[in-house]
Amino acid sequence: MMGYLNMKAEMINPFLNAAIHVLHTMASVEAKPGKPFLKNDKKATGDITGIIGITGQISGSLSITFTLSCIEQIVGSMFGEEVHGMTDEIRDAVGELTNMISGDARNKLSEMGVNLKAALPTVISGMGHVVKHINAGPCIAIPFETLHGSFVVEVNFEG
Amino acid sequence: MMGYLNMKAEMINPFLNAAIHVLHTMASVEAKPGKPFLKNDKKATGDITGIIGITGQISGSLSITFTLSCIEQIVGSMFGEEVHGMTDEIRDAVGELTNMISGDARNKLSEMGVNLKAALPTVISGMGHVVKHINAGPCIAIPFETLHGSFVVEVNFEG
Repeated sequence: MMGYLNMKAEMINPFLNAAIHVLHTMASVEAKPGKPFLKNDKKATGDITGIIGITGQISGSLSITFTLSCIEQIVGSMFGEEVHGMTDEIRDAVGELTNMISGDARNKLSEMGVNLKAALPTVISGMGHVVKHINAGPCIAIPFETLHGSFVVEVNFEG
Repeated sequence: MMGYLNMKAEMINPFLNAAIHVLHTMASVEAKPGKPFLKNDKKATGDITGIIGITGQISGSLSITFTLSCIEQIVGSMFGEEVHGMTDEIRDAVGELTNMISGDARNKLSEMGVNLKAALPTVISGMGHVVKHINAGPCIAIPFETLHGSFVVEVNFEG
């Protein structure tokens, strides 16, 4: 098992870069990352969240939580037309983005010798819901800003 | 990969029985299962949801979604004192119940030769949120009733 300091540096950057890369490629959206921070209360709030479980050399979970205005803009850009409100189209897109960010990050980690598998994604929608990763280990949050709102990627691994 | 008909019978019962067993053991709550059904729209609604990813011979996700009144009664019974409202105590208990139901079901499946691993659980709270499992495969919902309200277990596996 990796120590926490190693995990922080080596394990988190692939997820940060994957979020930037996937949103750029899929939606032409520039996501500007803030400084990743260690969460003590392990809660994020937002309007729609994609969650995917991770197993392998280390177990964990990945979530990505958007405000509605942010995901409307991202999905509108993906599809080339305006989208409004919490639709199945948006839920499916969040599932797909979650899968792709997990896959992109796992590919990078695999090149570093860390082999992980992903479960299937689940998407939760509901204005102002709270996301809590359950674990004794560290939960790292990476806040992002876009022109149309914010989102947060959270990576939780066993301690 | 197992066929869907085999999956339905053999893979779902361990989750159904695990939910009954864990709630009985941990909270002395009798959960009466309704008939499991194949979900077409793949959405559940509720106030608090525990989610855990599953990998191994088959990938998937498990969720358990409670009404607030139902989980207040379950957690109150676990701790031997009344609990009210959406607290961290309730969120942590839902994470623990999710872990235990996943573990109990995986033990049974392992005895049947199906070896699965679990990721770490995530808990979402927010009144009336919507849960959608993203997958081309079948999603099975198992509705439960207790004396104080309802909950639903959903099991999603790759098709």
